[in-house]
Amino acid sequence: MSIAQRAPEYIRSISPYVPGKPIAELAREMGLDESTIVKLASNENPLGMSPKAKAAAAAAVGDLARYPDGNGFGLKQALSQKLGVSTDFFVLGNGSNDVLELAARAFLPAGGSAVYAQHAFAVYPLVTQSVGARGIEVPARFYGHDLAAMADAIAEDTRIVFLANPNNPTGTFIPSALIEAFLERVRSDVIVLLDEAYNEYLPSELRYDSVQWLARFPNLVISRTFSKIYGLAGLRIGYAVANPAVADLMNRVRAPFNANSVALAAAEAALGDDDFLQRSFETNRAGMAQIIKGLDALNLEHILSAGNFVTFRVGDGAGVNRRLLQQGVIVRPIGNYGMPEWLRVTIGLEAENVRFLEALAFALKA
Amino acid sequence: MSIAQRAPEYIRSISPYVPGKPIAELAREMGLDESTIVKLASNENPLGMSPKAKAAAAAAVGDLARYPDGNGFGLKQALSQKLGVSTDFFVLGNGSNDVLELAARAFLPAGGSAVYAQHAFAVYPLVTQSVGARGIEVPARFYGHDLAAMADAIAEDTRIVFLANPNNPTGTFIPSALIEAFLERVRSDVIVLLDEAYNEYLPSELRYDSVQWLARFPNLVISRTFSKIYGLAGLRIGYAVANPAVADLMNRVRAPFNANSVALAAAEAALGDDDFLQRSFETNRAGMAQIIKGLDALNLEHILSAGNFVTFRVGDGAGVNRRLLQQGVIVRPIGNYGMPEWLRVTIGLEAENVRFLEALAFALKA
Repeated sequence: MSIAQRAPEYIRSISPYVPGKPIAELAREMGLDESTIVKLASNENPLGMSPKAKAAAAAAVGDLARYPDGNGFGLKQALSQKLGVSTDFFVLGNGSNDVLELAARAFLPAGGSAVYAQHAFAVYPLVTQSVGARGIEVPARFYGHDLAAMADAIAEDTRIVFLANPNNPTGTFIPSALIEAFLERVRSDVIVLLDEAYNEYLPSELRYDSVQWLARFPNLVISRTFSKIYGLAGLRIGYAVANPAVADLMNRVRAPFNANSVALAAAEAALGDDDFLQRSFETNRAGMAQIIKGLDALNLEHILSAGNFVTFRVGDGAGVNRRLLQQGVIVRPIGNYGMPEWLRVTIGLEAENVRFLEALAFALKA
Repeated sequence: MSIAQRAPEYIRSISPYVPGKPIAELAREMGLDESTIVKLASNENPLGMSPKAKAAAAAAVGDLARYPDGNGFGLKQALSQKLGVSTDFFVLGNGSNDVLELAARAFLPAGGSAVYAQHAFAVYPLVTQSVGARGIEVPARFYGHDLAAMADAIAEDTRIVFLANPNNPTGTFIPSALIEAFLERVRSDVIVLLDEAYNEYLPSELRYDSVQWLARFPNLVISRTFSKIYGLAGLRIGYAVANPAVADLMNRVRAPFNANSVALAAAEAALGDDDFLQRSFETNRAGMAQIIKGLDALNLEHILSAGNFVTFRVGDGAGVNRRLLQQGVIVRPIGNYGMPEWLRVTIGLEAENVRFLEALAFALKA
């Protein structure tokens, strides 16, 4: 038996995460000029990053031979002030992906189970499998979470439930009253991981304050990221907010220096740039209207999205995606989410959205 | 039972890693000016980072809203050229710490065991415990690895052996012929993780080529880091070299974007700066001679070190450390390594070494 065959079966059967195609990779493959490529595949902020964050990142480049502050003192202080809970409520992650993994590693032992929705973020089944636990996938309802069915699906050995609000890749939103009712219903020994990666894109009428729920629900873990509206995906920084006893356990499995120095500095600065946040929000609302209008004009079904992306049905997702790539437009095929007829597009800048819609019209005719 | 109590016992009993005290933290605690503090606590490169790496890092700051290249194309190409194996031999890590964790998560299931030496790097027992496995600590021989005893200690359920060469925190070196003999002896279904974080500091007469062993030993995993001689600790970037079947499994548990964009760019550039590497090496050799001379003058026992640090016996390690901190000098107490009478000092610049030796002389008299 080879050494690789000695790894546990649950590791050997992992299908790695399929990321959005990098611009450089498409350019290499198709012989295209990078500057002509439009990438709307990874729900990145088309405005880039906050100028304040960029200045902080540039300044941090001066002192990289030192290890980062493993406690993230400055960033936790800033988060504490913004969210109104003390610094021991926070767990910093190498992206919020890391935070999801830490929660699974801390609370979900091999042989346990995790509950998540069909068409929910691919990392939930991945982290579940990677710790040797069983995934319980609950059929979606109108492409979103069916919370009643998810509560029913919780088994004796379930240790964690993943909720994404809004959900990626479908963009569906769960009203806060339903989440609250779900929290009331779930056994208190099951972690509810509420993934709010796209939280800051919620229109004002949908906003809610999940952090205040922590006082009533010791089993709640909220995860957030700087990769989306804050525009720091390249730096890898996210965080969890949870009660101190829960945060402490996640911090025990955390690698001591999981968040790098540039990310810590940039995230702290980004938190203080409300102007950039507001501009990013408005750019997204305008771009969302533009893309939905374009999809309507093409008579394409799409799912109402509360995030910075929209998912639409083209029939042959792989084929249309290929024809978009040939035109230098990268979106995300989501066959691996059980939606082979659909594509997900990130809301871009006005000109990028135009380019995408034109390429899409051409791809559909081909 | 509280939610925290529902986490597995092996998680609840983890004692988190104790890092070197950050300069800013000591300044806050003691009311000192940061610029007066000398930190020789974390085996960082006192010359900082390579100018080429710094330029690459600064350039990378321009495009951080995009996710990093999850495959690390550029860095793997550069590593492949340098080490003479194809790109599928590499696993990139968020520091080499991440690589150690990936190896444990891929190959060491709960209920298995890992073998490591007494006084070896603290992360080996930590990652072992965090996956719910049993650690088998083998008594050190002259503060270094006792390879014969380690081979004997391998149990039926052992899936991984950690070797550090040189070892941190003791600086001890295992001659390559002994490692080769160990590899011959170890069962082929046990991963041998050879941690070479300090490899580039080896004097020429001790150097060896572990990468060529991969052709004969499919169970060998070599880990390296950019945090030490390359001076990129703040960015978090390290890597493993292993046969493709083994690397593939580690890549399956790897978070898709575990290495950030700045780190990828800086590491690639750092690999091409031989001048900086040579200067760093020579600065370390000169500083090591200076510090050893100083320790000898103080009549302090020390362990012969092949790294960029030296460990010396002061008796009351905690007390002497406290008196060094009061003088603004940060070294590393290693009571948590079972060596409460010893301190570890990183080789600094000439002036830093002088400052350390003077403060030490004063601390010993107090």
